Amino acid sequence: MSRTVKLAVIPGDGIGPEVIAEAVKVLDAVTADGGLAFEKTHFSLGADRYLATGDVLTDEDLEAISTHDAILLGAVGGTPGDPRLAGANIERGLLLKLRFSLDHYVNLRPTTLFPGIASPLANPGEVDFVVVREGTEGPYVGNGGAIRAGTPQEVANEVSVNTAYGVERVVRYAFQQAERRRKKLTLVHKTNVLTFAGSLWKRIVDAVAAEHHGVTVDYLHVDAATIFLVTDPARFDVIVTDNLFGDILTDLAAAISGGIGLAASGNINPAGAFPSMFEPVHGSAPDIAGQQKADPTAAILSTALLLRHLGESELAERVEHAVTADLAARTGAARTTAEIGDAIAARVAQ
Amino acid sequence: MSRTVKLAVIPGDGIGPEVIAEAVKVLDAVTADGGLAFEKTHFSLGADRYLATGDVLTDEDLEAISTHDAILLGAVGGTPGDPRLAGANIERGLLLKLRFSLDHYVNLRPTTLFPGIASPLANPGEVDFVVVREGTEGPYVGNGGAIRAGTPQEVANEVSVNTAYGVERVVRYAFQQAERRRKKLTLVHKTNVLTFAGSLWKRIVDAVAAEHHGVTVDYLHVDAATIFLVTDPARFDVIVTDNLFGDILTDLAAAISGGIGLAASGNINPAGAFPSMFEPVHGSAPDIAGQQKADPTAAILSTALLLRHLGESELAERVEHAVTADLAARTGAARTTAEIGDAIAARVAQ
Ligand SMILES: CC(C)[C@H](C(=O)O)[C@@H](O)C(=O)O
Ligand SMILES: CC(C)[C@H](C(=O)O)[C@@H](O)C(=O)O
Repeated sequence: MSRTVKLAVIPGDGIGPEVIAEAVKVLDAVTADGGLAFEKTHFSLGADRYLATGDVLTDEDLEAISTHDAILLGAVGGTPGDPRLAGANIERGLLLKLRFSLDHYVNLRPTTLFPGIASPLANPGEVDFVVVREGTEGPYVGNGGAIRAGTPQEVANEVSVNTAYGVERVVRYAFQQAERRRKKLTLVHKTNVLTFAGSLWKRIVDAVAAEHHGVTVDYLHVDAATIFLVTDPARFDVIVTDNLFGDILTDLAAAISGGIGLAASGNINPAGAFPSMFEPVHGSAPDIAGQQKADPTAAILSTALLLRHLGESELAERVEHAVTADLAARTGAARTTAEIGDAIAARVAQ
Repeated sequence: MSRTVKLAVIPGDGIGPEVIAEAVKVLDAVTADGGLAFEKTHFSLGADRYLATGDVLTDEDLEAISTHDAILLGAVGGTPGDPRLAGANIERGLLLKLRFSLDHYVNLRPTTLFPGIASPLANPGEVDFVVVREGTEGPYVGNGGAIRAGTPQEVANEVSVNTAYGVERVVRYAFQQAERRRKKLTLVHKTNVLTFAGSLWKRIVDAVAAEHHGVTVDYLHVDAATIFLVTDPARFDVIVTDNLFGDILTDLAAAISGGIGLAASGNINPAGAFPSMFEPVHGSAPDIAGQQKADPTAAILSTALLLRHLGESELAERVEHAVTADLAARTGAARTTAEIGDAIAARVAQ
């Protein structure tokens, strides 16, 4: 019996196509025995597409993507400051539009310090936590505006929108993660300053905590959380936080655990009403694009998250073990993007 | 000729009184020769005052404080979760009310890794930068609200307000700092997501940069900035950023440079229309209050910022040199709060 999964592949800009090529190579290797097959559709989206056609993400694109079971995305965004891109915001118009339209309310970002990987921290200790970042609300909603723009009288506002509905569903997901892990959940917010949004998050976490007596619940202001991420990352198991705080904390988390080249993420719609999307946390890095310098590991680890989301835990573990072995065997000698992908694909096939 | 400065002293809660006692001791020592005299008024404000009287900061308090030339503040805030404080928000009602009412639009937070101080980073390199955090706008304005609070239909909003007026004055201040330092300024924001506020900040920085050709200007998204703070802090000279990003980055900055026990700050109204306020970045730490365990160094370094603000650079340098010498001479043996204060005061008097 074979299962076929329709996968939308969005390589994107910069190093996106290079790292996605390796991620697909590993996906192919891990499914080579035929139990699971990916039927892939390639979507040309990002800065190049915008420059060629003027489109960022059309309704047709979105509709076509929606018919898939899952999405694998590389990275989007052209060269910063490129004047031809001045009229477009690829991040908002493409990446965030996908996350919002496809109701990716869980942005799942695991952080592990793999054996053999150097951390910038002198004594990192055990680093193994997951950030559950809300993906469809907060300061990311785009509900801002400016009056008298471009004048000395300009007033520019940004509105962070937080709903009980939106907070509760992501908090519930985070508690489920904690139940399956070390049973510790830390809410990160800034309740003493952002009192309205903060009260809502606090209230919901307290309410859901009452249904999960086995989970120890902790609270940290976002500023204090950055301190503990560098002085005692081992204290974290599951962090649940809003869209903007999650963005900030997960880059810091990636930095302390060996860098953004290893950080995978899933933009998940847990109920499955829309396809979930898996992508490395890193950006398109146009400065090194096309040079086979990018580390495809984050993209490859994102396929493990994709496989787990599809219920294929065994395949996910095979990818993760292959990555762990590859990282442990690294000698420091430079390898091309494809060489790293080949090595991991070979380990997966073993 | 002697100069008298009217200083409002707000020791506050928790470890506030202990560290302020040492800061005052050092101020007294450095002004012992009589050229400068502080006329101090003590204000009882914070959780204890609220519990005793129900007041957080009255109009009379604010008016009385305003008649002073400068303010020295310890820390405010009671024990988290204390049910008797549930009705009060000491942070918003006292600390932020002072910053906003006294138009402290520059929140100046220098970060230095002093010789002999251990960083959690394996290779910190040279750490010597200053964060110029906007202090009167952004998500801190308190312009939020909730509808259907406490129900499953709750919507809680927070509005970040940014004005050309407010951004320009703090950006100008940051460029002045850069001119006097290594002539590098980094704007930190999240322009790709917070497009309205981000455009305003970017536009103003570009405009002011055109008047400062000697200053190299750089831009980082806030998430990327956290990465560089742990992988390459030496790249920073002056960071200018909004109120919330500045809050987050300065705790991280303190962490990489030896901890929050060494981080000083000034809440400054550069034009002098209102008294500026100097305070350690740390909080009231009720868990160790009254035990003489707190490090008063951050409070003492805040007096150096106070002295420099008053134009007393020579006295400021004496305090800084005394602190540098004290830190370099630390043996690891535990000292009480007062012992550290005594040691620094003795060095200042030499
Ligand atoms: C590119 C940007 C819009 C995005 C975000 O802020 O979410 C990125 O930083 C990320 O973390 O995935
Ligand atoms: C106590 C709190 C309101 C304050 C802030 O967020 O500004 C503190 O974290 C700081 O950095 O001074």
